Amino acid sequence: MLSESMAALGKRRSTIRELFEYGNRRAAEVGRENVFDFSIGNPNVPAPDAVRQALLELVDEDPVRLHGYTSAQGDAAARAALADSLNRRFGTRYTADCLYLTAGAAAALSAVFKALSCPGDEFVLFAPYFPEYRCFIESGAGAKCVVVPPRIEDFQIDFDALEARLTVHTKAVVINSPNNPSGAVYSEGTLRALAAMLEQKSKTFGHPIYLVSDEPYREIVYDGLTVPFVPHFYQDTIVCYSYSKSLSLPGERIGYILVPSEATDSADLYAAVCGAGRVLGYVCAPSLFQQVAAKCAGQTADLSVYAENRRLLYDGLTAMGYTCVKSDGAFYLFPRTLEADDTAFSERAKKYDLLVVPGSDFGAPGHMRISYCVQTDTIRRALPLFERLAAEYR
Amino acid sequence: MLSESMAALGKRRSTIRELFEYGNRRAAEVGRENVFDFSIGNPNVPAPDAVRQALLELVDEDPVRLHGYTSAQGDAAARAALADSLNRRFGTRYTADCLYLTAGAAAALSAVFKALSCPGDEFVLFAPYFPEYRCFIESGAGAKCVVVPPRIEDFQIDFDALEARLTVHTKAVVINSPNNPSGAVYSEGTLRALAAMLEQKSKTFGHPIYLVSDEPYREIVYDGLTVPFVPHFYQDTIVCYSYSKSLSLPGERIGYILVPSEATDSADLYAAVCGAGRVLGYVCAPSLFQQVAAKCAGQTADLSVYAENRRLLYDGLTAMGYTCVKSDGAFYLFPRTLEADDTAFSERAKKYDLLVVPGSDFGAPGHMRISYCVQTDTIRRALPLFERLAAEYR
Repeated sequence: MLSESMAALGKRRSTIRELFEYGNRRAAEVGRENVFDFSIGNPNVPAPDAVRQALLELVDEDPVRLHGYTSAQGDAAARAALADSLNRRFGTRYTADCLYLTAGAAAALSAVFKALSCPGDEFVLFAPYFPEYRCFIESGAGAKCVVVPPRIEDFQIDFDALEARLTVHTKAVVINSPNNPSGAVYSEGTLRALAAMLEQKSKTFGHPIYLVSDEPYREIVYDGLTVPFVPHFYQDTIVCYSYSKSLSLPGERIGYILVPSEATDSADLYAAVCGAGRVLGYVCAPSLFQQVAAKCAGQTADLSVYAENRRLLYDGLTAMGYTCVKSDGAFYLFPRTLEADDTAFSERAKKYDLLVVPGSDFGAPGHMRISYCVQTDTIRRALPLFERLAAEYR
Repeated sequence: MLSESMAALGKRRSTIRELFEYGNRRAAEVGRENVFDFSIGNPNVPAPDAVRQALLELVDEDPVRLHGYTSAQGDAAARAALADSLNRRFGTRYTADCLYLTAGAAAALSAVFKALSCPGDEFVLFAPYFPEYRCFIESGAGAKCVVVPPRIEDFQIDFDALEARLTVHTKAVVINSPNNPSGAVYSEGTLRALAAMLEQKSKTFGHPIYLVSDEPYREIVYDGLTVPFVPHFYQDTIVCYSYSKSLSLPGERIGYILVPSEATDSADLYAAVCGAGRVLGYVCAPSLFQQVAAKCAGQTADLSVYAENRRLLYDGLTAMGYTCVKSDGAFYLFPRTLEADDTAFSERAKKYDLLVVPGSDFGAPGHMRISYCVQTDTIRRALPLFERLAAEYR
């Protein structure tokens, strides 16, 4: 008598959540310090002090205004501040009216998929992909997911495989760079080739294929790399951003949708985003954190610990014989598992209280996701266990 | 190429929003103090000092935990605190696991409708009703709205009209008491009769008809009235609550869904709510305000100004010959307009810079909604203008 699909989605928690809950139960048995939970992408570095300072300043402002409804798209001054920050960083000319503030990237993606979807539409995902995309696209927007298999040597794009999947039904292609779970950052070459293919196919099919760029990890990159700014490469880009990772505010649910004015039908597109936000029950993004984000525009938490964690983990695992792309961003490694059945491997790892997520969950079997947003000491103490696990396979 | 229905919903703002924006433009022309904006339900009393104190305490806690993801249903300790508060007030025995924290009542309603909806389902609304229900039910959950006409003498329930609309397709009946826009509070008698009818029809149709109780105004009542607690009357009640009005935090988006353990299939129902929240992109309710709500459980803003506003406005308008039910709650009056065409009346009122919302928007033509969450002085200065408007019709 209820929606069976909703009940099923609510009961069958994501594998990530299941592992996380298992880790909590196990911690109660053997002690938190003896469980090596690499399952969840919850930033372990604190929000920068600028967030605390902003909160302390804001709390003395007029509470009626501070905690009041903003317009559905977000407070105009906050949007202007965020647009200015983007313009300074990327040499763009966005206005407040290009931005729609959201309750994080998940809300942004849900609203964009709902805004774009017409009956029969297809959205193209690249494996490995963030598993919630499927929920938002299929169960939320009522559209279809089409998956491009992974190019496992570097997790860039397999263009032949992509081309074979672009059809007259393709409404949008979804990218996530830096990537969860692979950590890969799309190069300028990849983005240029992607833009060229989407431009050509848009012409062929007689309608724009939008590029939805999910960018919560934009600022988390290593070795001095710069993440190319996707709208510079392709006109019909829609950016979904979150402050969850860059400002370490994942619980506060604050982010935005950027609808560049160059995008085809941008006014209608922006209106459709507003309509979708309304239908999904997003009255406005949380008002206090709209102001916090505006005050902290362009700042980040101290992300240096992730660089150290990545170095330790990558060097340690590859020295033991694990095969792993040395990815450039986010806080995930995505090594091959030591047996083809990644779920069996993840189960075996539990023997050592190592919690890693099977790649199958992300559409890339034979891999595991290791979230290294943990204490560095956790990695140091986990490495001998990864060694013992590897020894089982020798 | 976009979802036309989403673009239409985004472009055609609600009449309430249109009036609000008109008021802002008009204020720029003639001065804010000369525009009498009764269009929007944005509380004008500040959040209680307890909110500021809670924020100041919380800001010194561990930011990784404070701003981190909570479980999807909300922090367990916060849910337990809110369940305890309900238990103290209503003599219930709810646990943390009966509550699912949400980004306000709109998110709560969207998730509940999505959780309940199967193809062909109908939701029964009572006019006058909050217009966004239609968006959530039709465009969000893909179900159908069936409207019971208003009982305009007191805005209680016309049971003959309700009975005629309950069918085998009825999934739920939606009530909102105290009501937006009428201000009516359903009496114990009304709730007993409603429960009896729903129990009988549930038996007849062989499946439970859920009662969705939307209660953001629960604490805003006058003359010492107590709002009956709906789950005491009907087992299959699902409560949607928001702190927007009681704590004057509408922009912060914090509320909850209560799934009482007595409800039919309550475990499945709770799971379906979790699934719906996931699909709609609600990762968790804003984490800082989960803690604020828990710390402020049972408190309210100083709501006494609304009582004074109601008295002034009701006495003033009825003395001039306006016909109005003296409603018991919320911060709205819903008088008859002085001509049958409520939209024409609302237009005519603009001549005096009086902004009132036509009742047609709420499914009750021939009425106007006056939001009295404004400065008391605004009401004092508006009354002579309502008198001049009335004089036009004599």
